[in-house]
Amino acid sequence: MDAGGGEQLSLAAVRDQLIREEDSIVFALIERAKRPRNTPAYSAAAAGGSLAEFFVREAQVLHAKAGHYQKPEDVPFFSQDLPPPVFPTKGHPKVLHPFASSVCVNDAIWKMYFNELLPLFTADGDDGNYAETVALDFACLQALSRRIHCGKYVAEVKFKDAPQDYSPPIRAKDTNALMNLLTFTAVEEKVKKRVEKKARIFGQNVTLEDSVGKQDGDACDSHCKVDPKVLSKLYDLWVMPLTKDVEVEYLLRHLD
Amino acid sequence: MDAGGGEQLSLAAVRDQLIREEDSIVFALIERAKRPRNTPAYSAAAAGGSLAEFFVREAQVLHAKAGHYQKPEDVPFFSQDLPPPVFPTKGHPKVLHPFASSVCVNDAIWKMYFNELLPLFTADGDDGNYAETVALDFACLQALSRRIHCGKYVAEVKFKDAPQDYSPPIRAKDTNALMNLLTFTAVEEKVKKRVEKKARIFGQNVTLEDSVGKQDGDACDSHCKVDPKVLSKLYDLWVMPLTKDVEVEYLLRHLD
Repeated sequence: MDAGGGEQLSLAAVRDQLIREEDSIVFALIERAKRPRNTPAYSAAAAGGSLAEFFVREAQVLHAKAGHYQKPEDVPFFSQDLPPPVFPTKGHPKVLHPFASSVCVNDAIWKMYFNELLPLFTADGDDGNYAETVALDFACLQALSRRIHCGKYVAEVKFKDAPQDYSPPIRAKDTNALMNLLTFTAVEEKVKKRVEKKARIFGQNVTLEDSVGKQDGDACDSHCKVDPKVLSKLYDLWVMPLTKDVEVEYLLRHLD
Repeated sequence: MDAGGGEQLSLAAVRDQLIREEDSIVFALIERAKRPRNTPAYSAAAAGGSLAEFFVREAQVLHAKAGHYQKPEDVPFFSQDLPPPVFPTKGHPKVLHPFASSVCVNDAIWKMYFNELLPLFTADGDDGNYAETVALDFACLQALSRRIHCGKYVAEVKFKDAPQDYSPPIRAKDTNALMNLLTFTAVEEKVKKRVEKKARIFGQNVTLEDSVGKQDGDACDSHCKVDPKVLSKLYDLWVMPLTKDVEVEYLLRHLD
């Protein structure tokens, strides 16, 4: 999250960021869908872990050396033994509570991605392009994780806007009451519709012939590179609930 | 390039692959455009090279360990001392001449990307997100390099279709004649129009409000995440000429 020069967070700025992250998620899924399932990339090899796990671990070491994982929304999947940056980094404005960086639901994202999501948007098959496949998986995981952990900013903004509403359930550690305060069904329905529409627009086969295009309607969904319904399902079942888990976890420690 | 089970290459299959690579290039540029120029990522640091160079070198080491760079279109930017794969890899059908893997224009792609292209589609500024920035650069470089080195398949198919046309200039090492044989201005114009259209469609801000959308027309170009004209310029000045350089270099050694 970039607070835009100042240190003030606004709900509008956070929402803009979340909307932009949707594009990244849709792009990443479309790119991964170029390749079939490629299950050998996920089976444990001689060394113990799978190629996918090896790749994500090593990629995170490299990203850490380059200076990544300094912001509260950038949380590694494997946080043990990450090296410090080897190049100078620039500080980011601290707009969240210091414990924000320890709020992490990556274990749930990892399981969801490999066990639930991947079979929904990749074709059965094995084309042998395992290295490319796991690099594309890493891009999906990163985009999902960043979007979901942006929930920390959502929670901070919502708390700041109405501390009188949030403080009592935080003190009572009332998770259900917090979850209710954080749930806006009408907004969630809009988000689901929008990501579905993005998948339809970004996943179409663009040709010079159709000048008006296939922006709407389900007629083209079978030609989309990722089924648009998978995107609304992803947001409905996992992205928005996990974001709210992040929000609740963040809020519960807000008065510590 | 995936020959699709068989070992036969067809011009149609190669063209489909090239068209799909266009989407990857457009997505990668749109993602990079999230961040401003961030020039400190490109200045030499104490260690000698820049963060960008460090990142690409190290990322390629990781990708090589994962089994990448086995196919003729996947050519590393820094090929010295790349480690062998540490996980089992699956062989790919050999449809090109063995020397194909040594045909490489990555030095020219590197210079073009950092010196010419980057200033055209990123905003002035420094937001401090250097690690993210160079990771996005690496994705752009990889997508461009793969697209351009797919020229090896284009050349192979064209040679197979008309060896009688290509053999004399190959024997005479007549680069100009080969370049003429490989140039189809009408096709190139279509490609430029198509990538421009893709940038317009994939780079728009999708909202639920506009149901018809802004698939065509220049009215929205200022709102596109990457100026669509940059894409047609990229293809006109660099992607298509460099692809033809790859084709010529491949063909020149075809009768060795």
